[in-house]
Amino acid sequence: MAESLSYASEKSGLPSGSLVHVGEVHGIENRITVIDYNPSMLEKRIIKSIEDVLPYKQTDTVTWVNIEGLSDISIIDAIGKHFGIHALVLEDILNTHQRPKFEDFNDYLYIVLKALSLSDDIFDVDYEQVSLLVLDKFVFSFKEKPDAIFDPILAQLGNEKGRLRNFGTDYLAYVIMDTVVDEYFALQDALDELIENVEDELLSTPTAKTLKTIQTIKRELIFLRRSVSPLRELLVAIQRSDSHLLHERTKRYFGDVYDHAIRVIEAMESYRDLIAGMLDIYLSSVSNKMNETMKVLTVFATIFIPLTFIAGVYGMNFEYMPELKWKWAYPALWMLFIAISVFLLGYFKKKDWL
Amino acid sequence: MAESLSYASEKSGLPSGSLVHVGEVHGIENRITVIDYNPSMLEKRIIKSIEDVLPYKQTDTVTWVNIEGLSDISIIDAIGKHFGIHALVLEDILNTHQRPKFEDFNDYLYIVLKALSLSDDIFDVDYEQVSLLVLDKFVFSFKEKPDAIFDPILAQLGNEKGRLRNFGTDYLAYVIMDTVVDEYFALQDALDELIENVEDELLSTPTAKTLKTIQTIKRELIFLRRSVSPLRELLVAIQRSDSHLLHERTKRYFGDVYDHAIRVIEAMESYRDLIAGMLDIYLSSVSNKMNETMKVLTVFATIFIPLTFIAGVYGMNFEYMPELKWKWAYPALWMLFIAISVFLLGYFKKKDWL
Amino acid sequence: MAESLSYASEKSGLPSGSLVHVGEVHGIENRITVIDYNPSMLEKRIIKSIEDVLPYKQTDTVTWVNIEGLSDISIIDAIGKHFGIHALVLEDILNTHQRPKFEDFNDYLYIVLKALSLSDDIFDVDYEQVSLLVLDKFVFSFKEKPDAIFDPILAQLGNEKGRLRNFGTDYLAYVIMDTVVDEYFALQDALDELIENVEDELLSTPTAKTLKTIQTIKRELIFLRRSVSPLRELLVAIQRSDSHLLHERTKRYFGDVYDHAIRVIEAMESYRDLIAGMLDIYLSSVSNKMNETMKVLTVFATIFIPLTFIAGVYGMNFEYMPELKWKWAYPALWMLFIAISVFLLGYFKKKDWL
Amino acid sequence: MAESLSYASEKSGLPSGSLVHVGEVHGIENRITVIDYNPSMLEKRIIKSIEDVLPYKQTDTVTWVNIEGLSDISIIDAIGKHFGIHALVLEDILNTHQRPKFEDFNDYLYIVLKALSLSDDIFDVDYEQVSLLVLDKFVFSFKEKPDAIFDPILAQLGNEKGRLRNFGTDYLAYVIMDTVVDEYFALQDALDELIENVEDELLSTPTAKTLKTIQTIKRELIFLRRSVSPLRELLVAIQRSDSHLLHERTKRYFGDVYDHAIRVIEAMESYRDLIAGMLDIYLSSVSNKMNETMKVLTVFATIFIPLTFIAGVYGMNFEYMPELKWKWAYPALWMLFIAISVFLLGYFKKKDWL
Amino acid sequence: MAESLSYASEKSGLPSGSLVHVGEVHGIENRITVIDYNPSMLEKRIIKSIEDVLPYKQTDTVTWVNIEGLSDISIIDAIGKHFGIHALVLEDILNTHQRPKFEDFNDYLYIVLKALSLSDDIFDVDYEQVSLLVLDKFVFSFKEKPDAIFDPILAQLGNEKGRLRNFGTDYLAYVIMDTVVDEYFALQDALDELIENVEDELLSTPTAKTLKTIQTIKRELIFLRRSVSPLRELLVAIQRSDSHLLHERTKRYFGDVYDHAIRVIEAMESYRDLIAGMLDIYLSSVSNKMNETMKVLTVFATIFIPLTFIAGVYGMNFEYMPELKWKWAYPALWMLFIAISVFLLGYFKKKDWL
Repeated sequence: MAESLSYASEKSGLPSGSLVHVGEVHGIENRITVIDYNPSMLEKRIIKSIEDVLPYKQTDTVTWVNIEGLSDISIIDAIGKHFGIHALVLEDILNTHQRPKFEDFNDYLYIVLKALSLSDDIFDVDYEQVSLLVLDKFVFSFKEKPDAIFDPILAQLGNEKGRLRNFGTDYLAYVIMDTVVDEYFALQDALDELIENVEDELLSTPTAKTLKTIQTIKRELIFLRRSVSPLRELLVAIQRSDSHLLHERTKRYFGDVYDHAIRVIEAMESYRDLIAGMLDIYLSSVSNKMNETMKVLTVFATIFIPLTFIAGVYGMNFEYMPELKWKWAYPALWMLFIAISVFLLGYFKKKDWL
Repeated sequence: MAESLSYASEKSGLPSGSLVHVGEVHGIENRITVIDYNPSMLEKRIIKSIEDVLPYKQTDTVTWVNIEGLSDISIIDAIGKHFGIHALVLEDILNTHQRPKFEDFNDYLYIVLKALSLSDDIFDVDYEQVSLLVLDKFVFSFKEKPDAIFDPILAQLGNEKGRLRNFGTDYLAYVIMDTVVDEYFALQDALDELIENVEDELLSTPTAKTLKTIQTIKRELIFLRRSVSPLRELLVAIQRSDSHLLHERTKRYFGDVYDHAIRVIEAMESYRDLIAGMLDIYLSSVSNKMNETMKVLTVFATIFIPLTFIAGVYGMNFEYMPELKWKWAYPALWMLFIAISVFLLGYFKKKDWL
Repeated sequence: MAESLSYASEKSGLPSGSLVHVGEVHGIENRITVIDYNPSMLEKRIIKSIEDVLPYKQTDTVTWVNIEGLSDISIIDAIGKHFGIHALVLEDILNTHQRPKFEDFNDYLYIVLKALSLSDDIFDVDYEQVSLLVLDKFVFSFKEKPDAIFDPILAQLGNEKGRLRNFGTDYLAYVIMDTVVDEYFALQDALDELIENVEDELLSTPTAKTLKTIQTIKRELIFLRRSVSPLRELLVAIQRSDSHLLHERTKRYFGDVYDHAIRVIEAMESYRDLIAGMLDIYLSSVSNKMNETMKVLTVFATIFIPLTFIAGVYGMNFEYMPELKWKWAYPALWMLFIAISVFLLGYFKKKDWL
Repeated sequence: MAESLSYASEKSGLPSGSLVHVGEVHGIENRITVIDYNPSMLEKRIIKSIEDVLPYKQTDTVTWVNIEGLSDISIIDAIGKHFGIHALVLEDILNTHQRPKFEDFNDYLYIVLKALSLSDDIFDVDYEQVSLLVLDKFVFSFKEKPDAIFDPILAQLGNEKGRLRNFGTDYLAYVIMDTVVDEYFALQDALDELIENVEDELLSTPTAKTLKTIQTIKRELIFLRRSVSPLRELLVAIQRSDSHLLHERTKRYFGDVYDHAIRVIEAMESYRDLIAGMLDIYLSSVSNKMNETMKVLTVFATIFIPLTFIAGVYGMNFEYMPELKWKWAYPALWMLFIAISVFLLGYFKKKDWL
Repeated sequence: MAESLSYASEKSGLPSGSLVHVGEVHGIENRITVIDYNPSMLEKRIIKSIEDVLPYKQTDTVTWVNIEGLSDISIIDAIGKHFGIHALVLEDILNTHQRPKFEDFNDYLYIVLKALSLSDDIFDVDYEQVSLLVLDKFVFSFKEKPDAIFDPILAQLGNEKGRLRNFGTDYLAYVIMDTVVDEYFALQDALDELIENVEDELLSTPTAKTLKTIQTIKRELIFLRRSVSPLRELLVAIQRSDSHLLHERTKRYFGDVYDHAIRVIEAMESYRDLIAGMLDIYLSSVSNKMNETMKVLTVFATIFIPLTFIAGVYGMNFEYMPELKWKWAYPALWMLFIAISVFLLGYFKKKDWL
């Protein structure tokens, strides 16, 4: 399902600066997971309120706070207060209709991404907004709902010698982004398979359903592009940023995410071109079919119409029709019928209609 | 209704520099509302002439002068004289066919926007030009007619602790722009719903009316784009401006409006692509329908044409037609009729025409 | 009539630097009008040769020399000699197939524009090249033929207090450009009305003539765009120029012309998009009509073909056809005819073909 | 004939740096013409080997060496050796599949152009690569075959007072480029006429041949664009170049060539748009024709099908058909036939099918 | 076969930084060839492990290590360790779904290319990723499988006086790139021939197979473009690079590769445009064919339908039909039949349907 555009105005009219959750995922119980680590230690626990992370301000460890569910505004509010986050950022975190973007607020970085996943075997994309706040010693990640997309990161964190445990918050941010972007490849594979199937269908037995599938893919690509293509700009901005929060050595890694994003974006463009071609093929095949129908009708009608006329002639009741009396007239007429048919069939054969 | 392009030349030919109201909304009685405030005080009154605001020049408060209706040229003239506004700006305020733009005149900033609203439940967009003059202690806003779009701002002004009461004229300008742009989301929702309905209609029972609706949406999108897409450039210019009238802290807020504008612009682009796809679907569905019609005709004609021929043959009046005398000839012929029909039906079944 | 592209090579092959008039307007008697003014004085006279303007070199007044008709090459030659104009500029003035452009030659500025006007009530655009040479105290304007497009400027010159009388040659150049560009709006209005009419026609009763009109508009837009769109670049170049001939205060005014030009250019783009949509609508409507034709044929044929077959059956001359003897057979058959018709009509009704 | 893309790989696989002639024009006897001049002297002779131009190195004159035919590699080789030309340049001169380009090698400039000419009255473009080496006192020009395109330059050289005789090698290079580009206008005129004819044909009697012509023009435009559009970039590079071989005063002239090139490029773009529109018109006209065919069939069939049915009814052989005995039945039936025909004709009239 | 997009996600989910071979070519036995040379010496041998090249670190020769087959990760790992290659580069070498790119890591340059070749006479492109590591004295090249594309380089190396033997590693990198890009021209020729054939087929006897071929070419072009067009950016980056590994004199040569790449890219664009035109031609030809079919049907039906009606009339059994008794009625009717046919044939002739 494409991300609904409706309700984008849910919040419009409210005084700017007031915190309201705007989005489609509601009724999710909030869960705050804290993962605190340094090269020699790794601790994970679930906490009830943001106040529980304040003690980590005193330590030198990297503290990753993962918030799942956005309905409890007090959590966002508390983060804003305790970590000095700008009101507009808090608003944006709560509004899940953001474009992917990167903003540098000196003391922290704000990154918005879209996590995409296939919800089931039909082509149905699930959009989830992932927001990141990257501070000196903290990373806050905000997700609309609990799911397993961050599990590979937990696995990596288990490796004591891994870069993740030894580098800072910027590297954690990179790993989260990389994990989100890597998911796009699964989507790309699904799209790839789907498009190949549609293409085969199109060249063998196109139906109205094929057209509908093509339109669905086209629609989905339009929405995917809106979620994916701002990544190019976003990652260029990160690589060019001179924020003290981003170390030179980490930028290479963001460059890698950039390469991946470009590959996905280019694949989307290719699909777009392929889909455009498919519509033309579909139209051609409909025209071809109609032509075939026409030919059947024309062949049948053209052969029998003159024959029927001749039969009609000898069905006339004139008193003076000498042929009617001839003995061999009837078989001769059958000869004529057959001759006309053979001649016309030959003509159509020559025209390649048979 | 799309903003009429006609009468754009209404004023052409007049010596440049002469003040004339060029637009479509006429006969509106002018109303000047003055809202004067600082953190501790808020005063609102309706005045008769611009001279009544001159005393506010002496105070330190922010003075917002909202002019509704542009037919009384003397008001614009007086503002020009008393506040040193360039003649070209005065002309532009009165000509409601402007593109959205931002101009920096050192002592004041000039901003033109288009307020868009749905006039009723059919898709019918109402365009209104909103011009802003932002001075050090004054903000002049010009609207073509009285309506409620600025009401949310009045509500915000009521909040003594709100940023609006505590920041300067630039923040007021931001709030006005934000209010105007937020309205676009309502429009986007309406468009979204409309397009979804058309899409459903298209895949179920497309009619000539569907085509007309598609064309109407396409037309409206062309005009909406002209009102909305210059906002991108406008807001970039504001953010890059080094005018002393724009404080650093306010620019973040204009950045927020920028994000909103980009989202609306991208949505318009998506709609464009969707609409383009719809026309193809429509054409395909018309072709499909014609094919179906052809098939019905072909099936009927192809079955009955040979049968009619055979009946014609035995309606001939030849004297020597031995079959006519055979006792079982008539029922045998019926057998033949049925056999031919069954064979042809089978053939069409195999061709998937039934 | 679109500006003919033919004869563009009229001059090719001639040694570059030789003066030849290349264009479509010939046989126009040349007329040189001199308007000399300063804030306190305004003089207008018609002169015979360029040598008559040389005395004005000594005065401090602004001298506007308007040359109508380009066939007398000696005039251009004389201007070149007396005012030190580059040979290539003289060539360009005489060749009316120039693109609009701005060139800065230190001592003078060279500007080429296209004046567009509707020659009559059918949509038929008249192109005229207007070249300007702006010197310190002189402005030379070159037109292909005499017409009234500069009349509003004469009216403005009459106003002693007007900026035109009090500013320099750059302001006069601005006023001429503004006058030319303002004419475009009249054209835009005409196009607007024409497109609206075509659109109405298209949705009610499209004919082959409608298609032809659409193609004509499309063609005209292609040519208009070539005359109008270089203005964007031209006016940006003027505004960025640091020529001593252009005063800072005048640049604002050129900015105003720029705004007008952008509006016209954007309108042209909108028309382009509208026209593209119209072709699709036309194709759809042709398809729809064909479908309707097919339905009429199919309904008629499908109802009568089986009936005719049955009538044919009972026209057969078999000796043993018991039905022929039955007393109620004939009326019963009529019942059958009616039943079949009603059934098929119902079927088509259900299919929405009636 | 479009420049064949085949054989582009003729040389691929050879070690880079080896001189081989790659192109389509072979078997041309090489001819080297030397034209040596200064303001007071002009000498032209045909030489056999490059060594014959070496003495001119000592003189102060401008020496133009024009080489026609590229099959004798030793000539190119000798130029490379005696004038210090880079091996890659020599290769490029011999490979006539180059894009137009400008390269600055400090001691000399290398320019590649495409000379285009109509080979005969059918639309058939002849492509010839023209390479220029511009040195301090020498200009080498390389052409694939002998033809008359440089004749106008010889004429100009005859004029002792002309700029060509008085300026340096850069002005000679300009004159050669100008001569080549001026030829494009002849091509443009031919295209213009052809397109106008096709357009007329399209709106009167489009046939499959019209479609073929449209496709041919489209194809040719694609190839023309590849030869012409790099000129924009090339001429910008020349104008921005700070090579000591290009004098400031000559750059104005290259600016003039730039203007011409832009005009040709824009005309090509316009043709492209026109051609795109034509295909739509063609498709519409085919659809319109089919619709007309359908209407003829439908009118005929719809009128006669019910009549034939009625005639069939009264051809039935039932014993009890009272109408058959009625005296006025036959003429009455004719009345009915006529009534039905008139009614249906009226119906089709109303539908605008007649 | 277009490079499959599937399996692009093969590796997604793995912790970034782990070396895995991601690609389609598997089961290739790895082969490491070392070519060590300086102007006076050339040695080529096949080694078993990377450790065997370490002694070359001590020499001043250029050492080219060509690795064919990527399945043995230990080789890549060893290169990483011994030559200090960044982990992300090693990953990229192993993942053959990279875009062509150039990266400068100070101590070494990393270049990714796609080698394209036609696998057989049907149009079937074979994609192979070629990665290059360019160090001060080493060049590592990585290919997916063993093939002959580098053979021309070996031939060049044989030439003691050749630039290749006398220049450094950057020149070797250039020669490798040049060799890969030169292969593109062979592909271009094949495409060229194929498109010409399809075009001929299209204008003579288009079939559904033609459409399929067009779609195949279109698809292949989309994938080719993704492999080829990043070369533009890549080669610009190389030319602008200020890496100490790239000498000024070599950049000219990269400029030559750039020219070749641009020519291939532009040819691809031309093919794209040609293909787009072909689809339109195909659609037109299908429409034309249908029109022809319709005409045959219409001519036949229109002529015989009225005749059959008349025959039907005189087959009626009315008692009072005076014509039936007339002696000359039957021949007269034949006259009428012929007259009607001739008239209608003349009508269709006039309409150009015959």
